[in-house]
Amino acid sequence: MRLSEVFFPTLKEDPADAEIASHKLMFRAGLLRKVAAGIYSFLPLGKRVLAKVEQIVREEMDRIGAQEVLLPALQPADLWKSSGRWDQYGPEMMRLQDRGRRDFCLGPTHEELITDLVMREVRSYRQLPLTLYQIQVKFRDETRPRFGLLRGREFLMKDAYSFHANVEDLQVTYEKMSSAYARIIERCGLEYRVVEAASGIIGGKVSQEFMVVADAGEDVIIYCDACSYSANQETAGGKVEEQQVNDADDAKVSKIQKIETPGHSTVDEVSRFLKVAPDRIVKTLIYKADSKLIAVLVRGDTEVNEAKLADLTSASDIEFVSDKDFAVYPDLMPGFVGPVGLDNVPIFADGMLRMMRDFVVGANEKDAHLINVNWDIDFEIGKWGDLHVTRAGEGCPVCGGVLKEARGIEIGHVFQLGTKYSETMNANFLAEDGNLKPYIMGCYGIGVSRLVAAIIEQFHDERGIIWPFSVAPFTVIIIPLNWEISDQRRVAERLYNDLQEANIEVSLDDRSVSPGVKFAEADLIGFPLQAVVGKRGLEKGCIELKHRLSLRKEDIEIGAAPERIVAVAQKGLEELSREV
Amino acid sequence: MRLSEVFFPTLKEDPADAEIASHKLMFRAGLLRKVAAGIYSFLPLGKRVLAKVEQIVREEMDRIGAQEVLLPALQPADLWKSSGRWDQYGPEMMRLQDRGRRDFCLGPTHEELITDLVMREVRSYRQLPLTLYQIQVKFRDETRPRFGLLRGREFLMKDAYSFHANVEDLQVTYEKMSSAYARIIERCGLEYRVVEAASGIIGGKVSQEFMVVADAGEDVIIYCDACSYSANQETAGGKVEEQQVNDADDAKVSKIQKIETPGHSTVDEVSRFLKVAPDRIVKTLIYKADSKLIAVLVRGDTEVNEAKLADLTSASDIEFVSDKDFAVYPDLMPGFVGPVGLDNVPIFADGMLRMMRDFVVGANEKDAHLINVNWDIDFEIGKWGDLHVTRAGEGCPVCGGVLKEARGIEIGHVFQLGTKYSETMNANFLAEDGNLKPYIMGCYGIGVSRLVAAIIEQFHDERGIIWPFSVAPFTVIIIPLNWEISDQRRVAERLYNDLQEANIEVSLDDRSVSPGVKFAEADLIGFPLQAVVGKRGLEKGCIELKHRLSLRKEDIEIGAAPERIVAVAQKGLEELSREV
Repeated sequence: MRLSEVFFPTLKEDPADAEIASHKLMFRAGLLRKVAAGIYSFLPLGKRVLAKVEQIVREEMDRIGAQEVLLPALQPADLWKSSGRWDQYGPEMMRLQDRGRRDFCLGPTHEELITDLVMREVRSYRQLPLTLYQIQVKFRDETRPRFGLLRGREFLMKDAYSFHANVEDLQVTYEKMSSAYARIIERCGLEYRVVEAASGIIGGKVSQEFMVVADAGEDVIIYCDACSYSANQETAGGKVEEQQVNDADDAKVSKIQKIETPGHSTVDEVSRFLKVAPDRIVKTLIYKADSKLIAVLVRGDTEVNEAKLADLTSASDIEFVSDKDFAVYPDLMPGFVGPVGLDNVPIFADGMLRMMRDFVVGANEKDAHLINVNWDIDFEIGKWGDLHVTRAGEGCPVCGGVLKEARGIEIGHVFQLGTKYSETMNANFLAEDGNLKPYIMGCYGIGVSRLVAAIIEQFHDERGIIWPFSVAPFTVIIIPLNWEISDQRRVAERLYNDLQEANIEVSLDDRSVSPGVKFAEADLIGFPLQAVVGKRGLEKGCIELKHRLSLRKEDIEIGAAPERIVAVAQKGLEELSREV
Repeated sequence: MRLSEVFFPTLKEDPADAEIASHKLMFRAGLLRKVAAGIYSFLPLGKRVLAKVEQIVREEMDRIGAQEVLLPALQPADLWKSSGRWDQYGPEMMRLQDRGRRDFCLGPTHEELITDLVMREVRSYRQLPLTLYQIQVKFRDETRPRFGLLRGREFLMKDAYSFHANVEDLQVTYEKMSSAYARIIERCGLEYRVVEAASGIIGGKVSQEFMVVADAGEDVIIYCDACSYSANQETAGGKVEEQQVNDADDAKVSKIQKIETPGHSTVDEVSRFLKVAPDRIVKTLIYKADSKLIAVLVRGDTEVNEAKLADLTSASDIEFVSDKDFAVYPDLMPGFVGPVGLDNVPIFADGMLRMMRDFVVGANEKDAHLINVNWDIDFEIGKWGDLHVTRAGEGCPVCGGVLKEARGIEIGHVFQLGTKYSETMNANFLAEDGNLKPYIMGCYGIGVSRLVAAIIEQFHDERGIIWPFSVAPFTVIIIPLNWEISDQRRVAERLYNDLQEANIEVSLDDRSVSPGVKFAEADLIGFPLQAVVGKRGLEKGCIELKHRLSLRKEDIEIGAAPERIVAVAQKGLEELSREV
């Protein structure tokens, strides 16, 4: 395509609300524009990239025998009521009524709809397994849409659902799907990790996320180099520390004592004031677990992981009660809550406390803390568990090695749902033994528009985007330095034709703008290859081929150019991000 | 793909709410399922057809230099308020609020959004023309969703928008787009007509519809075989009949007279009771034009065309006032309204009345009519115009030939919008003369999912669907009569591999079901070719190739089968619906 005919309005400045590279660069390169918070229009070059990612996803789904369907965005409330999620989903689900005042939502996901479809058509184990997928728009009214395509309110997703007669069969498909996800991400040239994940509102027991490693990622990956352990920080850890102080230590404990700490309530303040390290202080946090008050104790230098807390308490709703909400609880002293004498509030303690003796806690009195406090001696712990947010430096729950951290973008999530939906929706099949049984289900999502952003997060430099060959809007841009000079125009046009005939996706910069503008925009948009036709080169009978990733340049004899570019493009497609 | 692995739940019975062939057959062949009124899921074979139609549309758009974008479904109300359509669009537009109580709609179309996008980026005539398109889901809350994909509430559409510096340039793109639409419909093998159309809420002065001829169509096409005139009945006619009674006739008129017509108020009743043909009776209908009462006179055997009435009265809102609403107008006598003595109500008359003398009208008294009534003598007509619904048999407004009627499905609609949106939205560019001017715009829509249904309306028989080669889910189905017999299996598998290698889209019926079921389902789904592998054929070293359209069968020597099928498929693609 001739660049003069392409609508790609570039920007000199980053958009005011853009915090990360992909958001900035998609706007600057004219790939994307904002319509409202978290709602975007894809412009032609952005749409081309999106279509390529979509096609990679489609090919890998088809390869594993998943069948493409297209389900509607509008979903009747009844379906969601039958699974119980109409009430469970909060304001993130966008709801509306039709002209007959019937309730609908805009699908944030499609478990209910697909289960309803399949239960009406698939009645026998003989028709199983069945895996259906779609590439379709999803709606989630995020509290804080941001980061461009990484956290939008309307976005493109591939979602797949599988139905099985037994768990073993689910596991086979789950593995196939995981391999397909790995291939999709690899074909986009991305570095990634597969991590253990929390299943959240989608449900099921086993789930894994595919995390693209990127500093802009909102997720933290906890991993161990010594073994293959890798988990989302939301769920990482999991193994309660079994080791604890022994009786010998117990004999040496000091006597509890109250200390004035006027105006010092945070861990930092108390640590400085008492000259005690934060890991000698125990934080007492008050939560409502299904509306019942509980106290949670964690070491002063750690945070509470609320997902783990929900697990340990088996509460379906966990709500933090902050100091400023304390007005209604006269027994609780804002900033100075502690476990000693905290009557009628069950205490949950993080396993890290097992190794602690003579620690500091709030005194349940204004401007006072207790020192030399010991569990089992000064207060009772109701239940132990792994309750803290796992961080780099802690021990690996699998091998005991030292854990590391990296930031990641969640691109895919695969779930072994089991019978969560089929049981609540009464979706059964006739099993081989003649009994009606609920389908065993899996579901699998990959963010298609999010992948586009993730690619940019891994592939950009200070000049702009660097597209991997597999998803570039065009593989090559031909840049005649001066379009007004007929020699340059002629060589450029011929190369353009030759490359089109060789099925290379090529654009020709036929604009009458300065070479500086052409180079800057080619670098910004990030075509993998630039074929420069200039006076100096032509005098030697050459064009110059610039590799966007390495910025390396090579002179190629004009006649040999198409062949060389085809070869480089082929190699680039095979090796993706690697130097070619 | 092996048919045993394809999810295509066929039905023996038509769905209860299906009235037309495409709706019935898409359900029966397992291509489509209903989620709610007017909201459907495409199953794998349906999705394959949809993707093919989508690709044809995309190729033809790209061919004329339109650039693909992807705009969101969620659109902020502010955009629609800036064009005034937030209030103009009735309940057909689906509306919702986000968590911040901001108003949004689900786009029924995208004029506002694209105009807003372009006005921010395109500031100079040098950047024009610009044509953008998308293939995207649309939402319209139809009063009465029905006919399956023909009138759905969520559907797939290709919409394009063009921006120009002047009208001549708009006309060039309008013509290109019209040609592209013609090619799209022809590539789907369809018979169609391009007709003059009413622009409706989209607006603009010039617009044409692409009508696929089909008995199930909701639109009526009025056309003339003697010239090229062709129009949607909504707008057909337009030329007021100039010929009228002359003074000589006037001398012969009879004297007005009141007649008792007890209980006879409709044209039919009065015609029978008075033994007067309906074309000697004049109907008087009461409308509110922008809330002001008017009377409309048409010949008894014709109907009022409200679109024409809106044009003639320049009213933006036309509302029929029926007999049962008359309670609030004591001067109006239900069933017996007439123009004589109808004070303070302006009278609009259809041009057909110009030729009428001594006609019958209501007497504005219960159970009475007036006979021998004459305009200009017994009452005054405020304004003449073409106000009736044009029907077959009337004179062509272009050449005077006899008009004909056909039913059609509106597949595409192209509009010369002019400055309707750019003026109200203040969307300007810097013109060559240095002045700011509003863009001249065009917009162009084609129903992608509706095309799928229209194809079936033209291509089906009592056995099922007959897909044109260009959009078939698979070109060939290989049917071994008995999958358990190794000879048949072997020949079928080899043919399957050979055809796949030859890039023919082929399915293999590898199911252990009876030949009867295989044939019936192949006919129902409508693969263009069936390659039957059976005992009798194999004894002669042959397979049998059945053409779905003609039901013609030919024996082909096994070794020659792939080559012959490739040739037939190629020819089928070139000639589409025609016999091959």
